[in-house]
Amino acid sequence: MALVALKLINGSRLALHPTHIPSNSRTIRAFSAIMSPPSTAVVYDLHGPPDTVTRVINLPPVEMKANDVCVKMLAAPINPSDINRIEGVYPVRPEVPAVGGYEGVGEVHSVGNAVQGLSPGDWVIPSPPSSGTWQTYVVKDQSVWHKINKEVPMEYAATVTVNPLTALRMLEDFVSLKAGDSVVQNGATSIVGQCIIQLAKIRSIHSINIIRDRAGSDESKEKLKRLGADEVFSESQLEVKNVKSLLANLPEPALGFNCVGGNAATLVLKFLRQGGTMVTYGGMSKKPITVSTSSFIFKDLSLRGFWLQKLMGIDKAKESRKLIDYLLDLARQEKLKYEMEVVPFDNFHIALNKALGKQGSQPKQVIKF
Amino acid sequence: MALVALKLINGSRLALHPTHIPSNSRTIRAFSAIMSPPSTAVVYDLHGPPDTVTRVINLPPVEMKANDVCVKMLAAPINPSDINRIEGVYPVRPEVPAVGGYEGVGEVHSVGNAVQGLSPGDWVIPSPPSSGTWQTYVVKDQSVWHKINKEVPMEYAATVTVNPLTALRMLEDFVSLKAGDSVVQNGATSIVGQCIIQLAKIRSIHSINIIRDRAGSDESKEKLKRLGADEVFSESQLEVKNVKSLLANLPEPALGFNCVGGNAATLVLKFLRQGGTMVTYGGMSKKPITVSTSSFIFKDLSLRGFWLQKLMGIDKAKESRKLIDYLLDLARQEKLKYEMEVVPFDNFHIALNKALGKQGSQPKQVIKF
Repeated sequence: MALVALKLINGSRLALHPTHIPSNSRTIRAFSAIMSPPSTAVVYDLHGPPDTVTRVINLPPVEMKANDVCVKMLAAPINPSDINRIEGVYPVRPEVPAVGGYEGVGEVHSVGNAVQGLSPGDWVIPSPPSSGTWQTYVVKDQSVWHKINKEVPMEYAATVTVNPLTALRMLEDFVSLKAGDSVVQNGATSIVGQCIIQLAKIRSIHSINIIRDRAGSDESKEKLKRLGADEVFSESQLEVKNVKSLLANLPEPALGFNCVGGNAATLVLKFLRQGGTMVTYGGMSKKPITVSTSSFIFKDLSLRGFWLQKLMGIDKAKESRKLIDYLLDLARQEKLKYEMEVVPFDNFHIALNKALGKQGSQPKQVIKF
Repeated sequence: MALVALKLINGSRLALHPTHIPSNSRTIRAFSAIMSPPSTAVVYDLHGPPDTVTRVINLPPVEMKANDVCVKMLAAPINPSDINRIEGVYPVRPEVPAVGGYEGVGEVHSVGNAVQGLSPGDWVIPSPPSSGTWQTYVVKDQSVWHKINKEVPMEYAATVTVNPLTALRMLEDFVSLKAGDSVVQNGATSIVGQCIIQLAKIRSIHSINIIRDRAGSDESKEKLKRLGADEVFSESQLEVKNVKSLLANLPEPALGFNCVGGNAATLVLKFLRQGGTMVTYGGMSKKPITVSTSSFIFKDLSLRGFWLQKLMGIDKAKESRKLIDYLLDLARQEKLKYEMEVVPFDNFHIALNKALGKQGSQPKQVIKF
């Protein structure tokens, strides 16, 4: 593989024009600068179908500044938002060429002269998540990296900052819940959905879960109940006049989560109690959300949205690191579980095809470097 | 007209069974009790079409308790919610038989022994609004009545607690606005819409207004601009790719109001800025509100509802009386204006037919007793 001219958005591997590094500047810098190892990376030069536009290439070493930390990546997931970024359909459109990936875990390889509190061998995650994790070595400012407990299973460390944090923040940020309350959600088999069930259970909050009707939905129900779900309904079971009559002794939920849209969102709204809030964080059905006027006026519902990107401000980021430590601790204790498939980096394109849904429903794909 | 047996929900004229009052109890009470005058009232015995189920009848005098105030009604409007209550389609379904009407203004006729701060001749309004204002004499506890300035035009006093208060609370209760900000609304020709324009203007808040395409829409635009509207668009003018390009120098609104639903609600959402809030308070088109997933996640919109009924708690009611005084003062100074037609009580059924929309668009009907 050849060294290529790359201008990466976060400046970790700055523009190298022309493609070979002038030998004199290289010589001069060699005395003072620490260089990272070369990196093997998943790069896209254009926005488009990820299986077409991505390729695995070698990137040249980069010069590390005094505050930089070079991290040898251990694992990184392929999230739906990673795919949307490559497609160019995400609201924050990365400048190309770019390295894919947005979260992951790595081990500190080397640190700049001014770096404090991080040493080679430490495990770190970019928090808030940050672009370019699909490569073997990432160089970024020390402020990007959050040191974590090395006893956490690697694949959970690699995936904690997107899905589990979304679940936790959505449980905490919109409605003040107390033990004995309940929440309702659709898309309950998603990783966020599974996290909501488990995190709610830890707080003694009941969860009412809605899943799609499809082959295997009985197994899905059992699986979610084993995670702690109080009730799991398939959409067809909810074709009744008053869905709340199905709740038995559970209180009407004050908070609902929607990652599907269309009818599945309407079902969440039907379960909500007077004055309840529905938070939308995804739209898997690609259908919009339709709400009656009376739901707003007489039932006093609030509809909100959640986007992790909003939590990028310094205050929120600090708070989020505490929540991440809490979540990782739960994962270490096996109190927070979800299914993943760990795939060697060499098989990246096989994993990508699975993540693109080309082989039907698949567990979350996590690349191991 | 005959005296009839009536059990009215607020206990002002309690059950009289049998229809004649036993003469002995009447004699005993006559020594101590103050009786109200008989009242002529619009009564419905069944829920149904208001023009069919309402009739004007005489009600017998009622005995006044020590804290009661008897008010000779001066004027009361026919609001859409009054019609819905009679139809039985309102979420709070009055027990029948009942007297119609929910707000109005009257003059104190007589007071019970324990009443303080109210004297015959004072002008009062029920605040929070309360049922049974379509009659010549209303007897209710003194806590129901709010004394107002008699210099206010009677028809504004009669109508202030529903539409203008809705407009003011919606401007104040959801988003903190400052001078120079803007709001957007559909159904701008409604009384609430007209009040929003004027109340925003007083606060140096710009208003962007959406009206239906129909004969006379040019005149409507001029009328709203004279009230202080910054921009008035008919729905068809907004069939452009980016409605915000029409805003020229106005800031993108952080707050929007929807009383129409369907496409008109979508237009309000399109104008809103990142993180904006749309408050729904009506659904004139009878169409639901449809929202894309990305509006919630990436544009971070909040959708809420407003219902005056929610403000019935004591704290809110106290606060609302201050706002009402402010609004009535604006009306007195002609800084708050909207069109009404004052109709003598004898013509109640003519006014009712107009309010039912049987003669096309008509100004708000206000009954003068």
